[in-house]
Amino acid sequence: MQNFAYKNPTEILFGAGQVAEIASRIPADAQVLMLYGGGSIKANGAYDQVVAALGGHNWTEFGGVEANPTYETLMQALDVVRDESIDFILAVGGGSVGDGAKFIAAAAKFDGEPWDILAKGSEVTAALPLGVVLTLPATGTESNGNAVVTRTQTQQKLAFGSPWVRPVFAVLDPAFTLTLPTRQVGNGVVDAFVHVIEQYLTYPTNAPLQDRFAESILSTLIEEGPKALSSPEDLEVRANVMWCACMALNGLIGQGVPQDWATHMIGHELTAVHGLDHAQTLAVVLPSLLRVKIDAKRAKLEQLGARVFGISGDAAATIDAVEAFFESMGVATRLSGYGLDQSAVAPVIASLTDNGMLALGEHGDITPQTANEILTLAG
Amino acid sequence: MQNFAYKNPTEILFGAGQVAEIASRIPADAQVLMLYGGGSIKANGAYDQVVAALGGHNWTEFGGVEANPTYETLMQALDVVRDESIDFILAVGGGSVGDGAKFIAAAAKFDGEPWDILAKGSEVTAALPLGVVLTLPATGTESNGNAVVTRTQTQQKLAFGSPWVRPVFAVLDPAFTLTLPTRQVGNGVVDAFVHVIEQYLTYPTNAPLQDRFAESILSTLIEEGPKALSSPEDLEVRANVMWCACMALNGLIGQGVPQDWATHMIGHELTAVHGLDHAQTLAVVLPSLLRVKIDAKRAKLEQLGARVFGISGDAAATIDAVEAFFESMGVATRLSGYGLDQSAVAPVIASLTDNGMLALGEHGDITPQTANEILTLAG
Repeated sequence: MQNFAYKNPTEILFGAGQVAEIASRIPADAQVLMLYGGGSIKANGAYDQVVAALGGHNWTEFGGVEANPTYETLMQALDVVRDESIDFILAVGGGSVGDGAKFIAAAAKFDGEPWDILAKGSEVTAALPLGVVLTLPATGTESNGNAVVTRTQTQQKLAFGSPWVRPVFAVLDPAFTLTLPTRQVGNGVVDAFVHVIEQYLTYPTNAPLQDRFAESILSTLIEEGPKALSSPEDLEVRANVMWCACMALNGLIGQGVPQDWATHMIGHELTAVHGLDHAQTLAVVLPSLLRVKIDAKRAKLEQLGARVFGISGDAAATIDAVEAFFESMGVATRLSGYGLDQSAVAPVIASLTDNGMLALGEHGDITPQTANEILTLAG
Repeated sequence: MQNFAYKNPTEILFGAGQVAEIASRIPADAQVLMLYGGGSIKANGAYDQVVAALGGHNWTEFGGVEANPTYETLMQALDVVRDESIDFILAVGGGSVGDGAKFIAAAAKFDGEPWDILAKGSEVTAALPLGVVLTLPATGTESNGNAVVTRTQTQQKLAFGSPWVRPVFAVLDPAFTLTLPTRQVGNGVVDAFVHVIEQYLTYPTNAPLQDRFAESILSTLIEEGPKALSSPEDLEVRANVMWCACMALNGLIGQGVPQDWATHMIGHELTAVHGLDHAQTLAVVLPSLLRVKIDAKRAKLEQLGARVFGISGDAAATIDAVEAFFESMGVATRLSGYGLDQSAVAPVIASLTDNGMLALGEHGDITPQTANEILTLAG
């Protein structure tokens, strides 16, 4: 196990009716900005419950954050933050709204051009406090310090991270997820699954508890994910998926172990250039990446096979099983499944190179050339 | 899954050399009290490393906290806190020192008779901040808000809990545990194991991720615990045991599920009345409690057997396996193993009754009469 320093002060408020608790978690004198996406929070009841809970607070709202939150839209929200002297941001929605809230929270306290936080990795040294009411379990944004933002103008999708933007609280009421479209349910399960894989499927480092925690989440997603599709009204299934997605990327399972993240970095370019959903890109990239890197990852692939899929000593069959699981969640695993052919690869590799993603993976040996091989294999 | 609210803001500083980090975590102008037990921290290097790290701080020390910290000793430490205007407590040691620090931290801000925190459950509404440098992995005190204190005069061992006494940071350097006596290594593993069992072995509530996390810790303790005895110089083994013990009782695995804790409550009385080590009492009580409650716990016992011990559909054999594991860690599981006969039971039951422990367990149906049955069976 490697050394680590880990702290996760986000309060998780889990279960039915927990939105009401936000009233006591947001300072009474705060000027609150409720940030959200499209109309889904008005359909699933989250908006009304939040409005009721904010009855004693001064608040305003900003809607229209996109599925991949854009810098352009978030800068408009930043204007509201400044004009209204906002000092608490409440994100109501999925990962995109959470990520957008984090960028705004950091930008509001940033002395300089906010884009530099993403493009130059400029350090965030302060942020407005924020909370999340989650309606789509997937990204884990509700209790981590990470965010990803897209700049439409330049087709760039870039990430930043800071402990300053870790939410103060996260409300996880699975009832809000009952009305999610099938596509978002499948995407969310695949996204959470790949988050675990990125922190687990590297090489053995004698960290058996971290390994077993990772396998616990993977096994539970494999068990509960298909039920969320087949029994969409089952609240207990939704609760289990929601807790898995949160634990998958709150930082815990990755402490003290090597991490990969190449699938995410290549996937971000696929979204930026071709507009695929985030989870769709992961479903395309991961199986092919595992096939290209099968030798370096063989020991952990065989462990994954044995402990999670019941496959003994066969790394290739384990990769097939991962791919089949994604397909079973309704998420296609080939570029052709999204109407893309081999001509789609070159601009993705060019963008990866432009953004400086030259040495990805746990060994830093996934170059743009390797990424080209991966995407070609995923054709 | 039941509703829950969970927050764990303790920063874990894990690995070699992490003691140095406390210098930046303790406010520069703090008056620090270093609290410790006997001489072990001077033998294992922790004392010297802490002194070096505190070079830029004003600090004083208080040693002599017992293996079961006594109210009488802690009240002496409280005098030092008041005399020296202490505003940060640094516990250096095992669970007893951590628990003692928590009681002092709460007592220092308590308006009234500090004993009431334990005896009357008086609410703690403020506490001095505290940090822990852990030298004995066992109780999980380093990242939870619980403490247990013994009053010698009245032979009472009582617990309290408050988010106010959750440590600000916890240094987990496994090197400090290399010099532990065999008895403390065995005790620590048994203690952590039973902490998991108390939050897991109740009845099914469709919380599969919590179940698997619990099983992950149990499996890892079963794998690594015996190695800590057979290869006492193996630092990686110690690291894994240390991380297991922390995760066993930082609150995470118990969120959203029923809990038991009858074994601990009966065990506390065994320590208070007969002086057994804490883990020794757990090793005595748990197997017999499971045999008495086998019908109510059968479903989870069979799950434990299948997933952790490789025993299929046999609750009784699973209990035998738990008992054998404790014995393999060098911890006896019968009262007779500690020189006690059946005459030892009555005073324990009397103390349990006096302390109001009338309805223990996840169903509240473990009465003093049931406890009598359990301890008689454990003779």
